[in-house]
Amino acid sequence: MRLSVRAELDYSFAAPTDLLLQIEAAAIPEQIVEDSSLLLPPCAHVARVAAQDDIGERIWIRAEGRFLATYQATVTIQRLLADIATLPSVPPHMLPGETVAYLMPSRFCPSDRFRTFVDAEFGGLEGGALAAAMRDWIAGHFSYVPGSSQSDTTAQDSFVSRQGICRDYAHTLITFARAAAIPARYASVYAPGVEPPDFHAVAELFLGGAWHLVDATGMAEPGAMAKIGVGRDAADVAILTAYGCAEMRAQTVTVEALGGAA
Amino acid sequence: MRLSVRAELDYSFAAPTDLLLQIEAAAIPEQIVEDSSLLLPPCAHVARVAAQDDIGERIWIRAEGRFLATYQATVTIQRLLADIATLPSVPPHMLPGETVAYLMPSRFCPSDRFRTFVDAEFGGLEGGALAAAMRDWIAGHFSYVPGSSQSDTTAQDSFVSRQGICRDYAHTLITFARAAAIPARYASVYAPGVEPPDFHAVAELFLGGAWHLVDATGMAEPGAMAKIGVGRDAADVAILTAYGCAEMRAQTVTVEALGGAA
Amino acid sequence: MRLSVRAELDYSFAAPTDLLLQIEAAAIPEQIVEDSSLLLPPCAHVARVAAQDDIGERIWIRAEGRFLATYQATVTIQRLLADIATLPSVPPHMLPGETVAYLMPSRFCPSDRFRTFVDAEFGGLEGGALAAAMRDWIAGHFSYVPGSSQSDTTAQDSFVSRQGICRDYAHTLITFARAAAIPARYASVYAPGVEPPDFHAVAELFLGGAWHLVDATGMAEPGAMAKIGVGRDAADVAILTAYGCAEMRAQTVTVEALGGAA
Amino acid sequence: MRLSVRAELDYSFAAPTDLLLQIEAAAIPEQIVEDSSLLLPPCAHVARVAAQDDIGERIWIRAEGRFLATYQATVTIQRLLADIATLPSVPPHMLPGETVAYLMPSRFCPSDRFRTFVDAEFGGLEGGALAAAMRDWIAGHFSYVPGSSQSDTTAQDSFVSRQGICRDYAHTLITFARAAAIPARYASVYAPGVEPPDFHAVAELFLGGAWHLVDATGMAEPGAMAKIGVGRDAADVAILTAYGCAEMRAQTVTVEALGGAA
Repeated sequence: MRLSVRAELDYSFAAPTDLLLQIEAAAIPEQIVEDSSLLLPPCAHVARVAAQDDIGERIWIRAEGRFLATYQATVTIQRLLADIATLPSVPPHMLPGETVAYLMPSRFCPSDRFRTFVDAEFGGLEGGALAAAMRDWIAGHFSYVPGSSQSDTTAQDSFVSRQGICRDYAHTLITFARAAAIPARYASVYAPGVEPPDFHAVAELFLGGAWHLVDATGMAEPGAMAKIGVGRDAADVAILTAYGCAEMRAQTVTVEALGGAA
Repeated sequence: MRLSVRAELDYSFAAPTDLLLQIEAAAIPEQIVEDSSLLLPPCAHVARVAAQDDIGERIWIRAEGRFLATYQATVTIQRLLADIATLPSVPPHMLPGETVAYLMPSRFCPSDRFRTFVDAEFGGLEGGALAAAMRDWIAGHFSYVPGSSQSDTTAQDSFVSRQGICRDYAHTLITFARAAAIPARYASVYAPGVEPPDFHAVAELFLGGAWHLVDATGMAEPGAMAKIGVGRDAADVAILTAYGCAEMRAQTVTVEALGGAA
Repeated sequence: MRLSVRAELDYSFAAPTDLLLQIEAAAIPEQIVEDSSLLLPPCAHVARVAAQDDIGERIWIRAEGRFLATYQATVTIQRLLADIATLPSVPPHMLPGETVAYLMPSRFCPSDRFRTFVDAEFGGLEGGALAAAMRDWIAGHFSYVPGSSQSDTTAQDSFVSRQGICRDYAHTLITFARAAAIPARYASVYAPGVEPPDFHAVAELFLGGAWHLVDATGMAEPGAMAKIGVGRDAADVAILTAYGCAEMRAQTVTVEALGGAA
Repeated sequence: MRLSVRAELDYSFAAPTDLLLQIEAAAIPEQIVEDSSLLLPPCAHVARVAAQDDIGERIWIRAEGRFLATYQATVTIQRLLADIATLPSVPPHMLPGETVAYLMPSRFCPSDRFRTFVDAEFGGLEGGALAAAMRDWIAGHFSYVPGSSQSDTTAQDSFVSRQGICRDYAHTLITFARAAAIPARYASVYAPGVEPPDFHAVAELFLGGAWHLVDATGMAEPGAMAKIGVGRDAADVAILTAYGCAEMRAQTVTVEALGGAA
């Protein structure tokens, strides 16, 4: 699958401000970035640093005044796909060291509080079958309601309110998975078919010895997502983090499936 | 400074349970582990994985029944020390990539909510002077009250209740620091002089281009702490994490300063 | 049903402290307090004020040093009982004014967050059938675990952790009921059969034009409970509230069913 | 002081919905409602019930479709005013029974968590002097930022974020006061000078044996406020509470000081 991606950010900074930008499709084996361009306004400082798990890059920028960033790329997705329901479980004591951090509770995913629920609701299931049941539980119990959550909404809040947007679906699935000792991380992605068009976010679960993208909203397919970055939750992979006052004026995202080799 | 360290954990597991144990002083350049021994009961499975930032190791264990672990070591501390109040600040856009994750809010450190407070209370200060002011603010406003916090107490809870134990002091300092764009992580350590004797925890702040241990409780000195591990907050470096039911029967920690080369 | 009730509180106050004590079975039409005695130590000040909804009394006390209070009473319960599942609903717009406060969220019952859950889980049910379904849902999904909650645990916390003690069961039922526009209050009671023996707490729901006691723990029967007081939640009807430092040394409660006219 | 008050609510209800409306200036001794009119659309059901503490009325309405309510009134304020800093304290054990409920924590005012802070920050002060210090602390540490809080923001959230609107200022002052054993309730009012023009909310503290309005935002004077109703916090005195889906289309409030007898 080939994707054509375009994103425009239009911000304004009243004073010189440090920004962290993470907006580009990551150049990693599972997806080939064929061509890409990132246009930034003249800035006092621009520096690239590796992003979490070496998936993609974060860009440090020091900016002032109007800030218009335009990114576009063509990406060919060639990740291995699997029916997650069939994947075997990995017992915790056999988990690789680099996945352990993704067992821990994080800012928006307080998995330490969900063990009883997960045991009671999904007891008896394991591995991929368990992950699929969790995904389906969320899909069946949540409503997708734009505007129903805020930037500090946690999975505990969403579990109670039973509504949210992609980040909330992802946070809840990650929280459930960690409570069942399945490593789970948050992936910021580009995907076609997201309604309304925007950046998208899904969970990525460690099953059968590898990471697998799982979208509890059902809006996107793992074979048609371009990863921007991963982290413990939304706190780690914000598109733009400003260390100071920022005014968002506009933001547009367009993702088009070009077809092509899967 | 040389430390003699001894810890005994006495747990019981009714069913076969996966454990994550992180109890040994890390073998890293800033501290030499001269001798050490870790005695574990016969277990179905024991595997070591690198811990966070490659500081120390986590041990995966599958255990059942009585679980008695005894660790002892002699550690020579030779870390570079500094008067943190004099350290220069590093502007966010010049931070190394590996420190960026420690700017983000985490489970017990919701730094995203503290920017206004930090700006208002500490505005005008930077770098080490700012960090020292934050440490002193906590020391001056908090009371050390064993039993006043639980395993899910956050820095927001502690900020309101104004009391806690070492983990709460560390979480609050980490939260303040991140809100001011200073990378901050949580260090689990052995230190003499902790009252009552127990594992200890402090903040570690990235100042002047390096990490510096800072103890807002005032109980321990950076030159006399043996690091066990680091993480975003207490969720990452629990001494023992059980994926199942655990009963803690007893836990004792002894740390003795042997003196010697600083 | 006649109950023999006895409670002993043993506290200690290092400095002169204002206390609010609410420990006596209320003298109200639905229960006859045949005989009762409350023994207090000599105190600087004792004053009785009517408690919430004029059900029982609160006692203001100014005490210092050792504080030993002993209460005993014989109470005949003669409340009207009903199978709550059969009670009709009262549409909100026909609710009496004095019940309206019990529709509102309170400290431990954030019912404003539970509307979506309640609609989704119990949609289609009304009045007593709805209340019974909520009670049964809690009984079926929660585990009664002494020590699993703290004094500031909310119904939202319990809903996630799926465990608690009588106050948590009551808070959760109250929260569900209010979210469905059924007035619900918290009743502090004496009841036989509570294990371990202690003060007990249940929900009281306004159904079919009257208040009905409902115990989601299943430990006590409405016909065998002596009401101490009611409130919006546990915050309103603590047995003892101290405005200063209090040390609880011991507390014992004994409730015996004497049989007799129902 | 005479006030001319006008409020228009424009809502829409897709299905028949029960509403609770509390929008009229209360007819109570401290303020004379000289003339008033409330225009409602034809509704299936309209019933008045006494509001909390018998201050004003709540109106139950069953409505469907477009709902346009227009209220206007002229109110003469003749409440007794005092310099609150000079008012004596009432020791808790001498508080009248009807004020006791206003010592308890509530949904948005978790005063149980603030005792340590209040003791540390305001220790040594009592009664009116304490209340004035609390009011001034909030005025000095908070910023008035429209849009910075949501409908479920608590005083704990505001204490950390240090910003909010009138409800948040009132909640924080109420929380502080209750933590110091001063009864405190929430008053929904009309007041001139509110920017932007809207319904207003302030704290009302029980000092020197009577209730006194205190506005920590500094926007309104007790002698120029027309009370709509009181409650434990904003949960109790919402202008409009809908038991079902509501769409707010527009809401306008105009309050004009006509001068006249104070």
